[in-house]
Amino acid sequence: MSDLSDDGFLDGRLRIAQPRGGFRSGADAVMLAAACPAEGGQAVLELGCGAGVASLCLGWRVPDLRLAGLESQADYADLARRNAAANGIRMQVLTGDVARPPSELRAQAFDHVIANPPYFLGGTAAPDGGRALARQEATPLAAWIDAGLRRLRPGGVLTLIQRADRLDAMLAAMSDRAGSVAILPIAGRAGRDAGRVILQARKGARGPLRLLAPFVMHREPAHAGDREDLTDAAAAVLRKGLPLTNLFTKVS
Amino acid sequence: MSDLSDDGFLDGRLRIAQPRGGFRSGADAVMLAAACPAEGGQAVLELGCGAGVASLCLGWRVPDLRLAGLESQADYADLARRNAAANGIRMQVLTGDVARPPSELRAQAFDHVIANPPYFLGGTAAPDGGRALARQEATPLAAWIDAGLRRLRPGGVLTLIQRADRLDAMLAAMSDRAGSVAILPIAGRAGRDAGRVILQARKGARGPLRLLAPFVMHREPAHAGDREDLTDAAAAVLRKGLPLTNLFTKVS
Repeated sequence: MSDLSDDGFLDGRLRIAQPRGGFRSGADAVMLAAACPAEGGQAVLELGCGAGVASLCLGWRVPDLRLAGLESQADYADLARRNAAANGIRMQVLTGDVARPPSELRAQAFDHVIANPPYFLGGTAAPDGGRALARQEATPLAAWIDAGLRRLRPGGVLTLIQRADRLDAMLAAMSDRAGSVAILPIAGRAGRDAGRVILQARKGARGPLRLLAPFVMHREPAHAGDREDLTDAAAAVLRKGLPLTNLFTKVS
Repeated sequence: MSDLSDDGFLDGRLRIAQPRGGFRSGADAVMLAAACPAEGGQAVLELGCGAGVASLCLGWRVPDLRLAGLESQADYADLARRNAAANGIRMQVLTGDVARPPSELRAQAFDHVIANPPYFLGGTAAPDGGRALARQEATPLAAWIDAGLRRLRPGGVLTLIQRADRLDAMLAAMSDRAGSVAILPIAGRAGRDAGRVILQARKGARGPLRLLAPFVMHREPAHAGDREDLTDAAAAVLRKGLPLTNLFTKVS
């Protein structure tokens, strides 16, 4: 990968090299990290870690994690290793397929698995060419969830971010293997459909599903041009690296 | 049924006789009717119509519907017939099981099916005795959805209201037989988990799933005692009988 940009995340607290042309991580990766309730000393696996943004945001927020990432594309795996080193965060990055993880990974159990699985485009042409193509993979969403659940210890927590219209496929893939599912809708603006969902589930749990109040990203009711109009809550996550984990804690 | 109350719905526009002791319809039935996009001249089936509240709210709002209801308990079916007559709304009420509908019903196809399936309590004791027991039936949620989809014409619309924690079971039961699913979370108060969801799907459709912004019932952040604190939107539905159908219309 030759043409890289140097992007700031968390208001520049993290510097991430990403290819200008291929898949680039953004707010989704930061939100995913914010939703993961990992605590110091725990082991966290990111499936499809790309250039490492989500894991490194998490590593920045929570000290003393054992971070591991799996990435099928060797050049992105290399980038993730370089980004981890450049930010002084320890992260083991393995190159391999989510559907057939390397034996080194299969020997480990994790307290948390996080993933932002590629959005399936089915048979339709990618609207934005190469970038969308980079997100289209041979591994179906169910295989990502299966791989995540396999790598979790009993009681471990799976946290996914995904397009909201894949909610049915995500829930179907959980089947009876995970419970206490919590769904956080993420809406661009108040009153709009959710564009993304963060889904969190606990391996082997039996608690009831919860559909949380939406997290709203933008303040203005319509697109405000180049002017920054993040809600206070979104700015706290994207700029300051604050967690979303309290949203997933049951308040009765 | 001897001990009946005479309840006003839609600010008294409908008078409904209901047993004081058994299952009593409330806001859920009114919300279900408000969400159904039936138009004059169309045929609507309610599965498990109870005393008829949802169908009669719909019949009050939309003139010239062909309303049919299926109810397994003969005394509730009788009540539904009496309530329809007392409110001057034509409704055919059949006694029979959702899982084995009478042949008279199986001969018909409907433009809309609505249902508020009983909430399964599983093996746990009913917390409030008889009332909860009346909601506990032998027919699983999937059988309600199956029956509804069978009775719809191609392109017909299924509208369900259900406890939010049953969202996974509802979506699983749709499988490939219905699409263009829209989920409306219903939250008691802003920022709280959804307590109910209204799920709408079109038979044979292939459109993407939508997760809508929540509909909030109460204005105050906490319980306000006996004081009425419905949001304007909830009051418009519950008191004035206004529809919710515009929420399900895609705004892009």
